[in-house]
Amino acid sequence: MTEVVDRRGGGGTAANNKAVRTAATTAGVTKGSSAGPRANAQSASQPAVDVAELGEQLLGKWADARRHSRALAGDPALHKTEGLTHTEHRARVFGQLKYLVDHNAVHRAFPAALNGADDHGGNVAGFEELVTADPSLQIKAGVQWGLFGSAVMHLGTADHHAKWLPGIMSLEIPGCFAMTETGHGSDVASIATTATFDEATDEFVIHTPFRAAWKDYIGNAAIDGLGAVVFAQLVTQGVNHGVHAFYVDLRDPGTKEFLPGIGGEDDGVKGGLNGIDNGRLHFDNVRVPRTNLLNRYGDVTADGTYTSPIASPGRRFFTMLGTLVQGRVSLDGAAVAVSKIALSAAIRYGTERRQFNASSHTDEEVLLDYQRHQRRLFTRLATTYAAGFAHEQLLQKFDDVFSGTHDTDADRQDLETLAAALKPLSTWHALDTLQECREACGGAGFLIENRFASLHADMDVYVTFEGDNTVLLQLVAKRLLADYAKEFRNVDFGVLARYVVTQATGVAIHRTGLRQVAQFVADTGSVQKAAIALRDEEGQRALLTDRVQTMVADVGAALKGAGTLPLEKGAALFNQHQNELIDAARAHAELLQWEAFTDALRDVSDPGTKVVLTWLRDLFGLSLIEKNLSWYLMNGRLSMQRARTVGDYINRLLVKIRPHALDLVDAFGYGDEHVRAAIATGAEKTRQDEARAYYRAQRASGTAPVDEKVLLARAATSARTGQR
Amino acid sequence: MTEVVDRRGGGGTAANNKAVRTAATTAGVTKGSSAGPRANAQSASQPAVDVAELGEQLLGKWADARRHSRALAGDPALHKTEGLTHTEHRARVFGQLKYLVDHNAVHRAFPAALNGADDHGGNVAGFEELVTADPSLQIKAGVQWGLFGSAVMHLGTADHHAKWLPGIMSLEIPGCFAMTETGHGSDVASIATTATFDEATDEFVIHTPFRAAWKDYIGNAAIDGLGAVVFAQLVTQGVNHGVHAFYVDLRDPGTKEFLPGIGGEDDGVKGGLNGIDNGRLHFDNVRVPRTNLLNRYGDVTADGTYTSPIASPGRRFFTMLGTLVQGRVSLDGAAVAVSKIALSAAIRYGTERRQFNASSHTDEEVLLDYQRHQRRLFTRLATTYAAGFAHEQLLQKFDDVFSGTHDTDADRQDLETLAAALKPLSTWHALDTLQECREACGGAGFLIENRFASLHADMDVYVTFEGDNTVLLQLVAKRLLADYAKEFRNVDFGVLARYVVTQATGVAIHRTGLRQVAQFVADTGSVQKAAIALRDEEGQRALLTDRVQTMVADVGAALKGAGTLPLEKGAALFNQHQNELIDAARAHAELLQWEAFTDALRDVSDPGTKVVLTWLRDLFGLSLIEKNLSWYLMNGRLSMQRARTVGDYINRLLVKIRPHALDLVDAFGYGDEHVRAAIATGAEKTRQDEARAYYRAQRASGTAPVDEKVLLARAATSARTGQR
Repeated sequence: MTEVVDRRGGGGTAANNKAVRTAATTAGVTKGSSAGPRANAQSASQPAVDVAELGEQLLGKWADARRHSRALAGDPALHKTEGLTHTEHRARVFGQLKYLVDHNAVHRAFPAALNGADDHGGNVAGFEELVTADPSLQIKAGVQWGLFGSAVMHLGTADHHAKWLPGIMSLEIPGCFAMTETGHGSDVASIATTATFDEATDEFVIHTPFRAAWKDYIGNAAIDGLGAVVFAQLVTQGVNHGVHAFYVDLRDPGTKEFLPGIGGEDDGVKGGLNGIDNGRLHFDNVRVPRTNLLNRYGDVTADGTYTSPIASPGRRFFTMLGTLVQGRVSLDGAAVAVSKIALSAAIRYGTERRQFNASSHTDEEVLLDYQRHQRRLFTRLATTYAAGFAHEQLLQKFDDVFSGTHDTDADRQDLETLAAALKPLSTWHALDTLQECREACGGAGFLIENRFASLHADMDVYVTFEGDNTVLLQLVAKRLLADYAKEFRNVDFGVLARYVVTQATGVAIHRTGLRQVAQFVADTGSVQKAAIALRDEEGQRALLTDRVQTMVADVGAALKGAGTLPLEKGAALFNQHQNELIDAARAHAELLQWEAFTDALRDVSDPGTKVVLTWLRDLFGLSLIEKNLSWYLMNGRLSMQRARTVGDYINRLLVKIRPHALDLVDAFGYGDEHVRAAIATGAEKTRQDEARAYYRAQRASGTAPVDEKVLLARAATSARTGQR
Repeated sequence: MTEVVDRRGGGGTAANNKAVRTAATTAGVTKGSSAGPRANAQSASQPAVDVAELGEQLLGKWADARRHSRALAGDPALHKTEGLTHTEHRARVFGQLKYLVDHNAVHRAFPAALNGADDHGGNVAGFEELVTADPSLQIKAGVQWGLFGSAVMHLGTADHHAKWLPGIMSLEIPGCFAMTETGHGSDVASIATTATFDEATDEFVIHTPFRAAWKDYIGNAAIDGLGAVVFAQLVTQGVNHGVHAFYVDLRDPGTKEFLPGIGGEDDGVKGGLNGIDNGRLHFDNVRVPRTNLLNRYGDVTADGTYTSPIASPGRRFFTMLGTLVQGRVSLDGAAVAVSKIALSAAIRYGTERRQFNASSHTDEEVLLDYQRHQRRLFTRLATTYAAGFAHEQLLQKFDDVFSGTHDTDADRQDLETLAAALKPLSTWHALDTLQECREACGGAGFLIENRFASLHADMDVYVTFEGDNTVLLQLVAKRLLADYAKEFRNVDFGVLARYVVTQATGVAIHRTGLRQVAQFVADTGSVQKAAIALRDEEGQRALLTDRVQTMVADVGAALKGAGTLPLEKGAALFNQHQNELIDAARAHAELLQWEAFTDALRDVSDPGTKVVLTWLRDLFGLSLIEKNLSWYLMNGRLSMQRARTVGDYINRLLVKIRPHALDLVDAFGYGDEHVRAAIATGAEKTRQDEARAYYRAQRASGTAPVDEKVLLARAATSARTGQR
């Protein structure tokens, strides 16, 4: 026992050891009633979380929009009804969209002139919160106003706005965002649908040349869509000017039948989001007026001349697609919201549910007192906080760009890169958290009444739509490489190595071995000393930053000259480093999350809250370092001795955080009407109280049966006594 | 490029480099038609897989039972219909159970005297294959015959068999296995339902004392169950003899209404397996004849005297529960089967689907040629092979015990431990594989027509039912600790350290530092040399074995004396090492999988198959080492230099395996009627051929529009020319 206490508290005299042990017990490592650890948190020896203040901070800059949207999302009229067929679910969600219109929930981003509010940040914040009602509702709203409506608004001009936005806003015109094709998902530049200008009739001819060019996975396409923004290669005067967007009427508003030349298919049942009627569309020489081209970034005159304010076709394409970044931004926020819902349910259940009689004969352990259970849930709680703070920064950047406050090309590129970095991590994290919470709640977690499985099914596609996560991380990696190349242009490798080694954050290229040797010398201190260094903010930052920079530098060095190779060989060389590139992008995104968490600590004024949140940030940072510990070791960034302290330090953080776990999920601010999990209502505690009362009464009345094991033990004792 | 070629092939003269480069290109690192790499695999320079021979090996000892069951599972009558309500799905599955009876699919394990076959291994093998038709069908069959029927067979005696088995086998009596309670899942010993013997009427009184004691998550309970085996604490003459099983009639066969005193609830919609009517049951002093006690391991005479052939209550309890190990065994096999289905679909699609135009202007990369895609799918393919071979060993052990061939207490304990080790890994692996395959297929992967999402939803509960995976791994850990303690009883730590260090497998306790120092000295060779050592079978075995033994020894040392502490402190100490314990158990299970894969290599006679399978085994072993690389580094088992070669070596294995990927999934032997994924039917290739033909014809006719970028490039060139 002494050794363990030493490791936890720092060792020393016997008196010190005792003090440490008492503190450890108070911190919840041993069992207690579900109220116990929390009550302890309020005592003088423990910091306490100011739940209200923290809750306000988490609501962020667009707190009002979030509150308005949460109030709506708590309304049973918007909740997912489980067990419906996809046909029934689609009908329900379509009705809910009208409810959103009637309750002023979806127009914030549209122009004030059309009774919108020109409020881009608030619009996305409100949209994100809808996910707690039903992800299908959220995404169907996203298709209608975030994609279809946004495309008309951002890619079209005044006439288009006047003609279509009112009907889109009111849901009079349900519509599609017809970009993705069966043959091309993330690679939009390669779509094959054509829009060929016919000077004779002043019309564009929209055409699907083959099966792979059918539009696919298109929300609103199977049933509801009357109109569509169709993306196609604009061809005029024999020249292909690349992908442009066209407004196309799809169905007769009266009969709901496809108009001539248009056909489609229902995508059918999906893994989730079955409240949305995804489908396929194809066009057989469908003619639309020339003015149906959404012409903000490219136009065609009546004589067929193409004009554009952006000369470079490449930059023009990315500018057009860039207006769609809000999809990625909002998925990032929605993923954080769902992670919060899942953890609220699982952590509350963990403080009530008892299982296995480990330490006494009358009470079993509360699940959340088990070390493994803490590891499973608290590491994900820490990541959820980090992802939430990072999202708030992303949302701010998004609003800066779309409000025009900071809207340079560089701002837009930074926004794109930031969204491409954060959306993959948060959406994967949501799936991982839902799955872990579901498993942590055992069989109860599998019942739809507790929602984990339902939300997992619905959130699944978030990791591949609006940009496949793996593809997005490669975009991030390319940006990192480009920045790296820009910085070191015309610098030879020797100079580069020196530059990197002398950076303030302590970056080193492992090949030099300098830092590696230095650290081996430095790391002769005790385990305790090493742990202090790791929990130091600068220590974590240095390790996380170093890893990103070194990984990028390594890949950059390996790819040096790839551009001068024949195309096929250059691609092969690139492919040999694809895995490292994606890992580097991920490390970069994790660093951004860590920095956002650390920034947020500065905004916390309550001292107790700051202490607890700092533990949580440390848990996040140390978990990242633990996950990538092999990298730190084999690149000489951590000594073996120091690396061996990481796991212990994480275990100690779990014990510290345990008494504050409920406060930390309460600060998310979601009520029972949002969490809606039968196991998170206190029912488990009620059942246990009833069981305990039953056994107590049975013992008191003397009617309790004797355990056979007890009888055998008594018999063994009396046999031994008899032998004496 | 030279550096890269050196790394891949081993370097040397320029002539050698060229030869290596050619082989590398042939091996599929560069793009090719989907048939290309495979055709290359047949060439003289490449080993080829004998798909038929490997397929036979994978079918294993109970190949006939698997073939019979696969033929049935390929029948559309047994396939899951997607999009049904849970009510419709339940009705369909109940009908399918009758189909199984009629087609002789579910009686192999029952006594020959009752037209069974006393074939336990074959029964489980056949059962496992049903999962490809519909997991609900499989699990509902498992409830009826594997749990309800098995309990009557294994826990009951001749009269019970005669009375109930015929009706259970024919499905005349659909029934429940009523063990789990709302308050107690994995902890069966603590269930609260009581069966109190009443001498006056010669009856047991089955009673649910409070809400937490309701039976919950019970298959067949909501609708179909007419009978049940109910687990309850047997109380007679004031003594509780622990958990026993009782046969209880639940519903009137005519009206299907609950009999007096019995009530219940429907568990409703679940995350998956909605073809099964799970529900809750409670009993209000329900009386059953004394002879309804399934009395093989414990009986009560008419005067209330309890008798048992097993004196120890603890051993008796585990013996009774031990008869249920077949549930875990069969889930292990079913999880492997589902992983095979998922990989068959995703790998086939990966050989056809092209995306992003990386290396040429006319053809895009096939997904499976991307390094990251190979990493995602091939590492899981390797694990699936390992899990499959390990499962075959488990099934053999199961059959040995249940056939009576090897049925000592030690055999049963080994079987329990093996099942508890393998079932968690294979069921988690199935979920992980389904998710990764779904994501690797993008939006198409999310459509139910491609089944990944559907199977994920159904398989989800496999990780927590029949023993929560985390709890099972703790059982394994306890066994490892017990074995460790037994081996080193009365040995002080110094002796222990010496013992471990001198073992043949090269185990060392890191504290001694001996091996660590030795390896630093040894590791002065080149990267190439280190890679050879890692791909050596003995090298992998030593690393994997060492890790298990050291982890167990570490925890054993830390827990030394925990038994002498007061109960609460001992439990707290144990809890402080829970995470390490679970990790140690997992490492043990992974080692078992690796050993099983290695054993299987010895049974491969075709030389080409052996080469390819050895690469796959190496990929499995190296992936395990990579996953735990930080452990090997911080415990001094691998030097930094050697550790840095692991990733590269894995990347080279991926390239080697690429040409054989289709063969390796073809060897699983599942037909289109089992895989049933729209994307794995060649439709993608057909679409691409059509698209290519269209563009080819367009170019040939001279009607292809010119790309604006090409025009701009031409203009730039002529401007430069003009300047000259």
